[in-house]
Amino acid sequence: MDTQEWKQHLPARAAFDPAKMAKIDCFRSERLLVGLNCFEPGQAQKVHTHAGADKFYFVVSGKARFLVGDRALEAPSGSLVIAPAGVPHGVETALERTVLLMGIAPTP
Amino acid sequence: MDTQEWKQHLPARAAFDPAKMAKIDCFRSERLLVGLNCFEPGQAQKVHTHAGADKFYFVVSGKARFLVGDRALEAPSGSLVIAPAGVPHGVETALERTVLLMGIAPTP
Repeated sequence: MDTQEWKQHLPARAAFDPAKMAKIDCFRSERLLVGLNCFEPGQAQKVHTHAGADKFYFVVSGKARFLVGDRALEAPSGSLVIAPAGVPHGVETALERTVLLMGIAPTP
Repeated sequence: MDTQEWKQHLPARAAFDPAKMAKIDCFRSERLLVGLNCFEPGQAQKVHTHAGADKFYFVVSGKARFLVGDRALEAPSGSLVIAPAGVPHGVETALERTVLLMGIAPTP
């Protein structure tokens, strides 16, 4: 990667799409994908599962209701949400304009 | 992992050691390690290198001066700092009380 990308200010990288959740890659290798998931209020991410890859979300700003396994988790700014390999997960709804830092390893 | 750990509020998990940077694991598998690195002002993390593993730091709160490759990067809250595999990295000094979310894949 370009060494200019070694430091990124995430609030400045966030971008929103009125039609659906927006995804922005911050770093990608075969081992690790780190990016932003940006939601307008009411936007969602469908429940899905990664076999053999662990994922986390960190709520940088806003608040969202996650689904992980059979649980609904309301997660404000400062929350870390973990979806280990094989566990279904998604965002039922963003309760505010929300920016998530997400990471998954290995990259799907 | 215990499903109670699927959601963690990171500011509540931060803990500091007056003697040195404190490390707290949030999630660990062979694929991915996610944790907190907590610094009092002036504390540091020695420059080191992970062969074959990519690492990131996200500045949850505070401000720190990182060393990545041959560059010094002053990173306030909201910054993502990337150290791709093989690139020397560390924290030269925490400029304030600082909490970093870090992830590395695969786990060393």
